[in-house]
Amino acid sequence: MTEIKLIGIDADDTLWQSETFFAEVEEKFLNLMSKYSSDTSLEKSLSSNEITNLRVFGYGVKSFTLSMIETAHLASGGNISSLDIKQIISWGKELLQHPVVLLDGVEDAIAELTRDFTVFIVTKGDLLHQRSKIEESGLDKLVAGFDIFHEKDPESYLDFLSERNVDPVNFLMAGNSLRSDVLPIVSIGGHAVHIPYELTWDYEKVAEGAVPKSGYKVIEGITELPNLVVDLHA
Amino acid sequence: MTEIKLIGIDADDTLWQSETFFAEVEEKFLNLMSKYSSDTSLEKSLSSNEITNLRVFGYGVKSFTLSMIETAHLASGGNISSLDIKQIISWGKELLQHPVVLLDGVEDAIAELTRDFTVFIVTKGDLLHQRSKIEESGLDKLVAGFDIFHEKDPESYLDFLSERNVDPVNFLMAGNSLRSDVLPIVSIGGHAVHIPYELTWDYEKVAEGAVPKSGYKVIEGITELPNLVVDLHA
Repeated sequence: MTEIKLIGIDADDTLWQSETFFAEVEEKFLNLMSKYSSDTSLEKSLSSNEITNLRVFGYGVKSFTLSMIETAHLASGGNISSLDIKQIISWGKELLQHPVVLLDGVEDAIAELTRDFTVFIVTKGDLLHQRSKIEESGLDKLVAGFDIFHEKDPESYLDFLSERNVDPVNFLMAGNSLRSDVLPIVSIGGHAVHIPYELTWDYEKVAEGAVPKSGYKVIEGITELPNLVVDLHA
Repeated sequence: MTEIKLIGIDADDTLWQSETFFAEVEEKFLNLMSKYSSDTSLEKSLSSNEITNLRVFGYGVKSFTLSMIETAHLASGGNISSLDIKQIISWGKELLQHPVVLLDGVEDAIAELTRDFTVFIVTKGDLLHQRSKIEESGLDKLVAGFDIFHEKDPESYLDFLSERNVDPVNFLMAGNSLRSDVLPIVSIGGHAVHIPYELTWDYEKVAEGAVPKSGYKVIEGITELPNLVVDLHA
């Protein structure tokens, strides 16, 4: 028997849609840029610029918006218009203010899990945006709390667990990102559950060789999580 | 006698310079814009745009950078050049990577305070940037911990104190901002110490009528803080 004392659930693309909205903006961006450049690798340039900028800008929409503007400058050969820049910033504001769209079955699954377990929402990135989405979702009223990491690395998870006096072996983390929700949990000896989302941001992708073949579970949707936890805990 | 169980110290403009660097960039921005506009109220437009955007963008350098770009678009009548936008983003990156410059006497004062008291750095805004500065300062090795609020309001302070089982009456907060470090502390019944900095960001300014005449202390620099705490605690 494995005693589960604490459950962590990722937010973006696990509880609600996120990457979908980024992808929509990216498509509008590529469309906007088509009048400046016929470069077919523009999507790759944006993604690579975004990842390069992570170290300085961090995660989130503002970072993405600044990376789009930089990419627009470069890809247009220094000719992006003031109005188009303004358009890109508007997309950033729209992303930040986009209504929260919960994934199917999220509310019921969280309600069921919180009946028997202590559940935290564990996310990363932009303090204001993540917090706003958690509050707008109403899920903060169901769960025991939430934490917004600067980075979902083993150290941050260990700090989070030690503050709550929970041993990694009694912790289960579920989320859509192998890089952020699964690998660090496997490495600290916790229970990881991968719930793939239909889209994965390039940065969160993990090379096939780096994915452990065992040591974590995969389920199709969060609706399967309550039963999995009960089976594990039983 | 007042028992002080926990001391919170603000970071930007209390432990290290911050507003000074923003002001330097603002000056460069106004200079850059002088070729587009002879509007003498541009500084006010930037400040007001920045404050309007806080609700969506939140605090920090990325927010400031996006507000500069928006202001540039508007103030240039939609004619800001791609290259100048790129320049504004570079200033943002420079601000984010600016070396930490501790204010005079900070290290000694913090070292002295931590000998007898539990000291936390309590700041707000950008998770990655604030955390990077705390780590770069080396002060994280002296203090008991740090917390980065999304907003320094009474509720956030109460959450912070309740997580640590500290009553507001046993908490002392010191910082440069009346709005963020003093008023919320006075309102929850804690001990506030104002350490004015030579520059104050418009948003942190408080109308004279809103400043309580008593209920908090004012000192000239952080070097005076250890004695003040000892006197209060004695």
